[in-house]
Amino acid sequence: MDRNILLTIEYDGSGFSGWQKQPNARSVQGELERALSIVCNKEIKVNGASRTDAGVHAYGQRANFTGDFGIPADRLALAANNILSGGKNSLDPTGDMRIVSAEEKSLDFHARFDAKAKKYIYKIRNDGKTDIFSRNYLYQITKPLDIPAMQAAAGLIKGTKDFKCFQSAGGEEKATTVRTIYELKISGEKNILIEVTGDSFLYNMVRIITGTLVEAGLGKIHPESVAAIIESGDRQNAGHTAPPHGLYLAEVYY
Amino acid sequence: MDRNILLTIEYDGSGFSGWQKQPNARSVQGELERALSIVCNKEIKVNGASRTDAGVHAYGQRANFTGDFGIPADRLALAANNILSGGKNSLDPTGDMRIVSAEEKSLDFHARFDAKAKKYIYKIRNDGKTDIFSRNYLYQITKPLDIPAMQAAAGLIKGTKDFKCFQSAGGEEKATTVRTIYELKISGEKNILIEVTGDSFLYNMVRIITGTLVEAGLGKIHPESVAAIIESGDRQNAGHTAPPHGLYLAEVYY
Repeated sequence: MDRNILLTIEYDGSGFSGWQKQPNARSVQGELERALSIVCNKEIKVNGASRTDAGVHAYGQRANFTGDFGIPADRLALAANNILSGGKNSLDPTGDMRIVSAEEKSLDFHARFDAKAKKYIYKIRNDGKTDIFSRNYLYQITKPLDIPAMQAAAGLIKGTKDFKCFQSAGGEEKATTVRTIYELKISGEKNILIEVTGDSFLYNMVRIITGTLVEAGLGKIHPESVAAIIESGDRQNAGHTAPPHGLYLAEVYY
Repeated sequence: MDRNILLTIEYDGSGFSGWQKQPNARSVQGELERALSIVCNKEIKVNGASRTDAGVHAYGQRANFTGDFGIPADRLALAANNILSGGKNSLDPTGDMRIVSAEEKSLDFHARFDAKAKKYIYKIRNDGKTDIFSRNYLYQITKPLDIPAMQAAAGLIKGTKDFKCFQSAGGEEKATTVRTIYELKISGEKNILIEVTGDSFLYNMVRIITGTLVEAGLGKIHPESVAAIIESGDRQNAGHTAPPHGLYLAEVYY
């Protein structure tokens, strides 16, 4: 009888070409499917909640897969993790991804289509000296950032709006570019956290929002001009696309 | 006219086969010599203060090199860093090593032979849950460690002693295995730092001291038995060799 398993997965994106399976590249989806196919003893295809780019990390990526297999959900995570990291049958000794939990869902559940909201975290280090040990894990900005200016700009982004200006070319065609940002919080001083929760996100949206906030923090963009940038619907008016290695998919809500 | 330059270097050891140059492997020495040879426009050979193993990191490795070249010391560091990380002539885009400073020394100075003492830091994370983002940067121990027991054991290691029991086979033959540990400090709870300063160290000495302290912290070795372990001079009696990725060469003193 077919079952449907929902996984929560964490990974360090540094060593992956991104979530999506590609020929001749090490992807999170590809490694996961290889491990699950061994554990379930049949070919497994997973549906990921978010197709994170190369270098982007995850604390709480979600993915589901269906099939007829006997292994209980909790044993499945243990067995797949053993294959993924360090066990005798390890696919990879780097230990840079792990299934955090696995649960049974009804057969019609889909990790991506049923997601109600997602939370991303973007990490910035604002310090005159860069740190080589953090280079893959946060965005290092050596010039001082004006946090209140960034917070003022963030206040103008929250809400339900047409966010066309915060979309990179090259993503999947979307029916509408209207999205709702429920929360956009900036905290910290030297180590700055940007926490964004929204119903769904356009291609590179969190990274472009971050780049725009950083430019507000550096005085390149006036915080109040963010309303006009959104209004314009023009990617050219928004800030740069912040690098992928500061971005973490934190949580997917169902 | 020949000059002698002393460099301070930091690196993330994760992507290196270690300090020492080897054929067909990416070593810190090898990358450094390649960059300096371009900058100085002649073949450069460096003397490193410590030949750190694969996976071991450094905040303050030192190395000197001599030769007749025109570039001022401060420009040399800038130019070599540009080649080492991210610049147009980058050897490597990973940015995992950097020259922190460069200074002129007298011609008879040698980074290794003139070192009076060295300080290493060993980082442990003591938490029931392992963290994939830290896997290359600290030693994760999920069972609770008894810090006072580790500190008691550490107190018996300090001083001038024959530390043969804390030496791995395979290192360079040394005339004597007597060494002086000036300081051995353990601090923190969840994030534990072991700071060791000594006149010089035997092969794998800090990692075996750490493994011994960890076994004292886990109750496998009685802290007071450390005196007898040292007395025995037998590697078999000491604890395991802690993994390389928790170890940082912090400072070299001249």
